[in-house]
Amino acid sequence: MNARMSRALDQAAGLDGLLITPGPDLAYFTGQRPPITERLTLLVLRPGHQPHLIVPALELPHDPGELTLIAWEDGDDPYALVADLLDPRGRYAVSDSAWALHLLALQQVAPQTRYTSMTATLPMLRAVKDADEVALLAAAGAAADATYEQILGVRFAGRTERAIADDLARLLREHGHSQVDFTIVASGPNGADPHHEAGDRVIGEGDMVVLDFGGLKDGYGSDTTRTVHVGEPSAVEREVFDVVRAAQQAAFEAVRPGVACQDIDRVARRIIEDAGYGEFFIHRTGHGIGLTTHEPPYLVRGEEQPLVPGMCFSIEPGIYLPGRFGVRIEDIVTVTSSGGRRLNDTDHELAVIW
Amino acid sequence: MNARMSRALDQAAGLDGLLITPGPDLAYFTGQRPPITERLTLLVLRPGHQPHLIVPALELPHDPGELTLIAWEDGDDPYALVADLLDPRGRYAVSDSAWALHLLALQQVAPQTRYTSMTATLPMLRAVKDADEVALLAAAGAAADATYEQILGVRFAGRTERAIADDLARLLREHGHSQVDFTIVASGPNGADPHHEAGDRVIGEGDMVVLDFGGLKDGYGSDTTRTVHVGEPSAVEREVFDVVRAAQQAAFEAVRPGVACQDIDRVARRIIEDAGYGEFFIHRTGHGIGLTTHEPPYLVRGEEQPLVPGMCFSIEPGIYLPGRFGVRIEDIVTVTSSGGRRLNDTDHELAVIW
Repeated sequence: MNARMSRALDQAAGLDGLLITPGPDLAYFTGQRPPITERLTLLVLRPGHQPHLIVPALELPHDPGELTLIAWEDGDDPYALVADLLDPRGRYAVSDSAWALHLLALQQVAPQTRYTSMTATLPMLRAVKDADEVALLAAAGAAADATYEQILGVRFAGRTERAIADDLARLLREHGHSQVDFTIVASGPNGADPHHEAGDRVIGEGDMVVLDFGGLKDGYGSDTTRTVHVGEPSAVEREVFDVVRAAQQAAFEAVRPGVACQDIDRVARRIIEDAGYGEFFIHRTGHGIGLTTHEPPYLVRGEEQPLVPGMCFSIEPGIYLPGRFGVRIEDIVTVTSSGGRRLNDTDHELAVIW
Repeated sequence: MNARMSRALDQAAGLDGLLITPGPDLAYFTGQRPPITERLTLLVLRPGHQPHLIVPALELPHDPGELTLIAWEDGDDPYALVADLLDPRGRYAVSDSAWALHLLALQQVAPQTRYTSMTATLPMLRAVKDADEVALLAAAGAAADATYEQILGVRFAGRTERAIADDLARLLREHGHSQVDFTIVASGPNGADPHHEAGDRVIGEGDMVVLDFGGLKDGYGSDTTRTVHVGEPSAVEREVFDVVRAAQQAAFEAVRPGVACQDIDRVARRIIEDAGYGEFFIHRTGHGIGLTTHEPPYLVRGEEQPLVPGMCFSIEPGIYLPGRFGVRIEDIVTVTSSGGRRLNDTDHELAVIW
């Protein structure tokens, strides 16, 4: 049982074990990244037992390390194999993204067992990164920064959002990303939709353009946003931009160990509210990042978790004016012993492009 | 409530409704494809009620159609909003790939509700495709076939598996795939691992190479496999290949309405067993395909579901000789009124390449 497993079980006192499915939790504990499918793969961690991996016979890991493998073949019932390992009245934490298909089958085959989600029980298990992980996130951030610097040199006016999005994806890959998770190019009124992706709209002079892109490099995530303007911005565009920039900067400066997650959100929100745009900041201020691009800690109202050195998360306030335009600025920030350090550091000024 | 929703509720007699999360089920019912995240998006279908969509405020659909939207903001409890729509003692089917995070939160906020998976309750809901869906699958299959025809023209010997995999991905995209899900290039002994993806092994003369690739084109899946040989095959390589080809052909010819899924598996398996290779065919014969590349019906021992015209699935027997090589041949097949029709139709002969 490795150190991450032991630490997780220590934190999970009161539970009889952890049930880990393919995805970031399994990568964290074992380095294994099998596909996520209807065939059950499940790591069972229990205090005082070796880790067991229930796994389809055709997906046996080449290098199982210390895992005890329990292979099953198509036509077998893998849930019964899991139940054999569980306390019939035990309580287990399950990976957040485990499929309902699998959880419900377990609940059926072992009806007295009880379950909770990893986030409900061990929300901060992966939230505090070690030095190697911070270095990987910094490298992913640097790749995203290089992508942004290069996208400033391409032509925007007269091209579609989708064409710019394709450029972003290509650049992220050129800078070492194995996976591109999102390439938002939200121009003009589309920018007022925080999760607009990229469409057929042709970008033109006078457009604000929100660029929000990221993915995975060497297994760790990038996620950065800059808002640029085609041609000279209007006074109101610049005003809104400056409010968001000030909110992002203030939230960054508020980062230090011991501050509650929700307080970072509050700092950013207050600046936007004081400027009269509070109703147009319609999402939380940030989310953790690591083996995924969205994970705890969440910088959101109600999250009382204090910041701890090694936590890594986005700070990404925005203002969205329906039918007009949007502005968002986002950096990944890691908590240090005395404050915060940005893992993105491209210029925060409003870039005027063509 | 559209026809697909009504039909699903009719089939779900005895249940109080369906809870549908982003992914293939939601695309099937609504055409909506929001991201799959920790933020709850849930379609609630109940007999006698309009469909409701619980959705994050920042992901409101642009074209909700007949959906009644219930938006929630970061910091709200979306599960309480769902519970307000449910019979406190009701029983609901949940999308297979719904996250445990969401299901467990629902079970907690509405502890008397009960759940089952879509596959446990309505396994064949999406299995029978309409004519438009079959046409989309045929188009995806044709794109995969074109990819295979072109890959036969590239140089294999002296290049890595990964380089060939990159070629396959590029070709699939050039032929209209929006998403590439897998590009297996398993050469020599790597071919003995059915789910080997592609690695740094340099392909050389004398290698069998399993090519298994697919993804999504216009929302529908492709998935085909051909096994090729670099240079002239040995007698045993050709023998194993011919057994797999015969098994694939016999299974295809067994397809007709009313035949049980497991019988198609049995036909393929018997040919391989009779040839003395039964222990080396270590997976089911096939899986359904549609809005995903793996879905019911499964052609597997124990699946008694009879075939129905419009079902679409892979037929992909294989033989895997550890340490030596593997062979797999896979086509997508649709059930017609009188038999089966292949949606892949590239040559089944062993292609000798260089």
